[in-house]
Amino acid sequence: MTADYWPLADVVDACAEHGVEWVGPWRHKLEDVEDARRRIDAAGLKVSSLCRGGFFAADNADADNRLAVEQAAALGTDVLVLVCGPPRTRDLAAARATIEAGIERLLPHAREHGVRLGIEPLHPMMISERSAIVTLGESLDMAERIGDDHVGVVIDVYHTFWDPRIDEQIARAAGRILGFHVNDWLPATQHTLLERGMMGDGIIELRRLRSLVDAAGYQGPIEVEILNPAVWELPREELMRTTIDRFEKCVV
Amino acid sequence: MTADYWPLADVVDACAEHGVEWVGPWRHKLEDVEDARRRIDAAGLKVSSLCRGGFFAADNADADNRLAVEQAAALGTDVLVLVCGPPRTRDLAAARATIEAGIERLLPHAREHGVRLGIEPLHPMMISERSAIVTLGESLDMAERIGDDHVGVVIDVYHTFWDPRIDEQIARAAGRILGFHVNDWLPATQHTLLERGMMGDGIIELRRLRSLVDAAGYQGPIEVEILNPAVWELPREELMRTTIDRFEKCVV
Repeated sequence: MTADYWPLADVVDACAEHGVEWVGPWRHKLEDVEDARRRIDAAGLKVSSLCRGGFFAADNADADNRLAVEQAAALGTDVLVLVCGPPRTRDLAAARATIEAGIERLLPHAREHGVRLGIEPLHPMMISERSAIVTLGESLDMAERIGDDHVGVVIDVYHTFWDPRIDEQIARAAGRILGFHVNDWLPATQHTLLERGMMGDGIIELRRLRSLVDAAGYQGPIEVEILNPAVWELPREELMRTTIDRFEKCVV
Repeated sequence: MTADYWPLADVVDACAEHGVEWVGPWRHKLEDVEDARRRIDAAGLKVSSLCRGGFFAADNADADNRLAVEQAAALGTDVLVLVCGPPRTRDLAAARATIEAGIERLLPHAREHGVRLGIEPLHPMMISERSAIVTLGESLDMAERIGDDHVGVVIDVYHTFWDPRIDEQIARAAGRILGFHVNDWLPATQHTLLERGMMGDGIIELRRLRSLVDAAGYQGPIEVEILNPAVWELPREELMRTTIDRFEKCVV
């Protein structure tokens, strides 16, 4: 998603060229899953996760989420990121119950395909459009209630760094962390969706959060996820080099 | 703040004309505090609160906050709303400690003037510009640690409705609620500051939150606070009538 203007094939090639070992595709980039899998395999890359399932209150949610599970399995990843979707009415408790019921309905299909479901809390400013699940705490409440090793959480620093309880919640997430996303919160952020920053350009304590995730036992890949047209517009080499450089400076 | 384009004198007159009994001025509208007090008294209004003190990491914070306390007392209100200010570095824990220390330094002056300090959590999307305090839970943690009847919290539905723990936190706030602000969260909100909605235009369960605040024993005035140029630009009569009408339909 950090290179949203490129076709997936270009992202795969660029990662291979630059020694990036993992790629995490979003579904809108998957034209032909089998073809994508062949390209990724041929380049020697692994797939960190597929993003996204979720939106459990949408009309076709169940069918679409079953397809997303199948696509994840076909791509060779065992993680499907869930962006759980907004409330359809003002009743947030009902929206959250709808989401939990949707995850439970999806779970047998996910287990059958060897795909784990990662509940990603989104920033509270995204509640009306993207997710009624807005804290790591409630993602963990839900994962614990479901109580299945195919349900966990995905932690994105952008969505969670503000939380005064983040330290204890990351510790609590031990054994359930299915993904870790990095980027940055830019000072003077004005836009609720497309102003995510490059690591190091903002105010997030990236290395500290990474050390908390490490301490919770997470050993999987770390995904860079920057939704920002100013980043998307960078020339290919500059985007790749800057991303890798900042990752090494701010996260490693 | 719902009529930010009008001088305070016009707001006072309009409230008196329309039977609104309370007014909650912001400090940028106070040119002459004594004169403001005379106008408000003459119109038969009471002052619900003064907004704002806070910004504890600013260079002149202590002097400015002492002045704000004095202005609140001079206006005849016993509530100063605290917008606590952003972090100065990436260290949020340090920013929060700076805020708590600032409140403790201000407290004797506030007590002496009969002014209570209301810690207002702001929406997490405002963290880098306006407040490192972003949940009602941490406002209450702070108020409880300070443990003085001149320190409480202010609850704004816009800043808090998204919180999956809001019900229990409002209940916990019993005896410490110094103000309650209403407005609405508009669907498809794109801007992090100036898109607050008129009550009824958004997704917040206003009556439910009001009933929680009632159940916590709050009996003070309810303030309408809408930061939005589309509201500010409404003609005087339309702004007054719409605000009162929506308040009665959605909050009462």
